[in-house]
Amino acid sequence: VNVTAAILVDGEWSERINASDRGLMYGDGVFRTLRMEQGFPVWLESHLARLEADALRLAISAPAAWLWQDDIDRLAERYPTAVVKLVLTRGVSARGYRPDASIRSTRIALASPARFTYSPAADGIIARVGNLRLGIQPRLAGIKHLNRLENVLARMEWDDPKIPEAILMDIDGRVVGGTQGNLFLLRGDGLFTPRIDRAGVAGVTRERLIAAAPGIGLRAVEADFDMDAVMSADALFFSNSLIKLSWVQQLGERAWSRPDLYPALLDALHD
Amino acid sequence: VNVTAAILVDGEWSERINASDRGLMYGDGVFRTLRMEQGFPVWLESHLARLEADALRLAISAPAAWLWQDDIDRLAERYPTAVVKLVLTRGVSARGYRPDASIRSTRIALASPARFTYSPAADGIIARVGNLRLGIQPRLAGIKHLNRLENVLARMEWDDPKIPEAILMDIDGRVVGGTQGNLFLLRGDGLFTPRIDRAGVAGVTRERLIAAAPGIGLRAVEADFDMDAVMSADALFFSNSLIKLSWVQQLGERAWSRPDLYPALLDALHD
Repeated sequence: VNVTAAILVDGEWSERINASDRGLMYGDGVFRTLRMEQGFPVWLESHLARLEADALRLAISAPAAWLWQDDIDRLAERYPTAVVKLVLTRGVSARGYRPDASIRSTRIALASPARFTYSPAADGIIARVGNLRLGIQPRLAGIKHLNRLENVLARMEWDDPKIPEAILMDIDGRVVGGTQGNLFLLRGDGLFTPRIDRAGVAGVTRERLIAAAPGIGLRAVEADFDMDAVMSADALFFSNSLIKLSWVQQLGERAWSRPDLYPALLDALHD
Repeated sequence: VNVTAAILVDGEWSERINASDRGLMYGDGVFRTLRMEQGFPVWLESHLARLEADALRLAISAPAAWLWQDDIDRLAERYPTAVVKLVLTRGVSARGYRPDASIRSTRIALASPARFTYSPAADGIIARVGNLRLGIQPRLAGIKHLNRLENVLARMEWDDPKIPEAILMDIDGRVVGGTQGNLFLLRGDGLFTPRIDRAGVAGVTRERLIAAAPGIGLRAVEADFDMDAVMSADALFFSNSLIKLSWVQQLGERAWSRPDLYPALLDALHD
């Protein structure tokens, strides 16, 4: 299979990685996905900060930021408008869950010519409710790690290209987010998003939206809520670094019109 | 890093795999580890059956058994006594959690010169109780998949080579097993092992031990139990395909002497 992408592995052009890498063997690593727009990596500083924080939680040694920056500059020459994925694994080791003390992490930077799943538009999106319930694991919650089988299975539940996203709950029925992004729910002047201390991922766009909310007169609140709260919201949004922010037009029987605040939210994200 | 191993990727000698493989990107795959003893892959049929059943649960297409057998024959020529690891990923795809319909799975067979963590011996092992609590995810429970960050973190909790294994509980306090194998608990004529429908892995040795129990006068029971039941057991055993079966000599304050039944259990495993 030929996947169009430029790939740097530890700073070397390569389409292959060591088969004994713990990223493959155990999903022992973290990643971040971002937009490259005309050679400019959007919100790179935030992504690198998150990647480093995630690595720290897993005790994976993170490379210096300038190494990633150098990779990105070289990728930008090949594909100035692209989806960029930064992957950091714990590295190559002999078999066994416990890594050697001397292990060195593996740095992988990939660029694929832009192929965004969906883009912010005047039209909202149609979403569904996923059947898969996410497990609860505080030790991994919030981390964008390489153990993503739940997301894969959740995204395999449907094949309708008109539906780009699904809302996922955890095994206790709490709403966690989408299969590939975070969820926000507007109710009055409250902008609610699920807590991510038991499941889910701390997205960079989520972080920016929470920070930006007060500037447009909204209270950002991380909270626990169920599907009833979702269905009775004034508006719903999905965020991630590729789509940035999309609003939900339809979810099951419920339909919403374009939220008046949508353009202001999009603008606020970029400030 | 030079890891001594012979590796076949889709039947070709290679130490590298495609960096876009979903095994690396999402841990989207399954695996089995087995003993190769003087060119003979121990319990291979059971391992291949389990691997195929696991792949089916994740909707990954499994290769014909003879392809694995062929790989193993070739590995045996290089390393007749080895740990063999069979890895099956969903394959290579463009980015995005949903795979293309046309995706073809990747078959990886590795042999490392035997380096068993510990071997069945007259002496028992010292075990500890792990701090990490396993998440509950019925959709993945029992499957030996590549999302193994929990095991990695659990195994990184200690660095004492005299302690080969730890007992792990789930977030509700139910005992699940070891970091790298299943757990059995002897009480009277009952041989208890944790249910694996919410967390844990369905090991081949576990399966064989359950099947063999009646032959030596034991009732095998899959059950829910907590650490109190573990500490008050007549004997404890860990099983996996590399160690086969070891008995626990010490766990925290509690010590056990060698169970009279141990040789019979070991023998029964091989019938």
